[in-house]
Amino acid sequence: MKKIRAAIVSYGNIGKYVFEALQAAPDFEIVGVVRRDASGNKPSELADITVVDCIKKLANVDVAILCSPTRQIETYAKEILALGINTVDSYDIHGGIVDLRRELDKVAKANNARAIISAGWDPGSDSVVRALLEAVAPKGITYTNFGPGMSMGHTVACKAIEGVKDALSMTIPTGTGVHRRMVYIEVKDGYEFEKVAAAIKADDYFAHDETHVNKVDCVDALKDMGHGVHLVRKGVSGKTQNQLFEFNMKINNPALTAQILVSVARASMKQAPGAYTMIEIPMIDMLPGDREEWIKRLV
Amino acid sequence: MKKIRAAIVSYGNIGKYVFEALQAAPDFEIVGVVRRDASGNKPSELADITVVDCIKKLANVDVAILCSPTRQIETYAKEILALGINTVDSYDIHGGIVDLRRELDKVAKANNARAIISAGWDPGSDSVVRALLEAVAPKGITYTNFGPGMSMGHTVACKAIEGVKDALSMTIPTGTGVHRRMVYIEVKDGYEFEKVAAAIKADDYFAHDETHVNKVDCVDALKDMGHGVHLVRKGVSGKTQNQLFEFNMKINNPALTAQILVSVARASMKQAPGAYTMIEIPMIDMLPGDREEWIKRLV
Repeated sequence: MKKIRAAIVSYGNIGKYVFEALQAAPDFEIVGVVRRDASGNKPSELADITVVDCIKKLANVDVAILCSPTRQIETYAKEILALGINTVDSYDIHGGIVDLRRELDKVAKANNARAIISAGWDPGSDSVVRALLEAVAPKGITYTNFGPGMSMGHTVACKAIEGVKDALSMTIPTGTGVHRRMVYIEVKDGYEFEKVAAAIKADDYFAHDETHVNKVDCVDALKDMGHGVHLVRKGVSGKTQNQLFEFNMKINNPALTAQILVSVARASMKQAPGAYTMIEIPMIDMLPGDREEWIKRLV
Repeated sequence: MKKIRAAIVSYGNIGKYVFEALQAAPDFEIVGVVRRDASGNKPSELADITVVDCIKKLANVDVAILCSPTRQIETYAKEILALGINTVDSYDIHGGIVDLRRELDKVAKANNARAIISAGWDPGSDSVVRALLEAVAPKGITYTNFGPGMSMGHTVACKAIEGVKDALSMTIPTGTGVHRRMVYIEVKDGYEFEKVAAAIKADDYFAHDETHVNKVDCVDALKDMGHGVHLVRKGVSGKTQNQLFEFNMKINNPALTAQILVSVARASMKQAPGAYTMIEIPMIDMLPGDREEWIKRLV
């Protein structure tokens, strides 16, 4: 069986987990890792792996798994699609997804390539569950409750506040899609905790949510990559009310994102040229091996 | 907007709920209902609906929603696909799905039609969740726990036992995919409850499960079309253990099956000719209206 030749683009936290997920997958081979500074310190696990500063230096790449920050995705994806190489990413700015899909769709089609975008857990697998629940109970309300888990966006916002030395913002679900922010900070010398806390609460990231700011000695000691989702829908199937659905997960956040990127990288090989979100691809395309075997096992 | 022209084939319990789901759908029109005895008593809700004994008597049908018993599906589907009309069904014999798909795939492709098979909640929407969870955590075990709810198969098996006047077999989940059977029977005159109960417990449908048989005065008074699923997976994403997932629902059984049939009838219009299970179609194809609007809302 010819294996799918994958490149990892950018080797941060997600990249490391993608490396593991590719090693665990039966149908992939790792062509190489693309890092801006390819001559820099090579992590020990990459000892036998080709590391380059440009994807053009890797031969016959089928799919590039983009592990760079969300704001760099569009640029990288366009460059790589233009080479006729599929891309997958976990672009996570909900308001920008439709535009990104349009942009990449053009480039992908022009270069006989496929892009699967926003493929993580939210957006991503949660989106698939939300779409399924809309189909099985078209009227009703879905609430996606996140956490408990670290919010990257809120943590970064918090670190930008004057007087904050280090910070962690945890997202705590209080139901019906409403979230509490539990913030833990180390305060810089010469700053007063109460004033810093007030500045955080006044920041636009926190002003609209119930926010509690706590002073701690060591933020790093609190960090845990676990996260969770509690997604609920109460709706109507046909004319029948009170259909109740619930999807829960408790997961290692970057490990799940990375696994989903690898599964959609596989799916990218089976689509027509163009750009897709996860609700636009059949679930079976994410699975390796014989289709009838999966149908026998799962359907 | 041109509406999708649907026919309901067979008008029993599921057919009635499909009728409601089609009425509630914004993008369908009901061309007619196909019943073996079209001249028989017409239910009041069908007063304005064309009822015929053969689908050929209905004009320009896009998709036939098959609501007949599982064992008749293959025959009906082949006849209708041969007319170039799409079919959808909720064929539910897990061991027969691969064969049915192969058979219908040939007929569908030869007649430029599409069949979506085994589209209910299990097989069906549960299959989609199981496939998604395999993709996001490839190693691990999934347990599908059913109930509490009525098992049609076990109830029928129970009614076939000598001395049983009426029966109801409830499926009770006890975890890890193991189920208890709670059986409620009315005993025929001249039969001894203990002997009938022993015969039920010895039947192959019940012999392998924990089975409790209860004597009641009126089985009908116990009947409720509610059902449930508690689906769990504990697995590995990449090399990261202990990823926990759970999907729960509490639903009206025929209403959910009917809604799913209508949603896949919509999806059938968007597939290439051939036969599909639900894990082979993109979720977005089950939803009405503009795709970008759904991506904006759900992804």
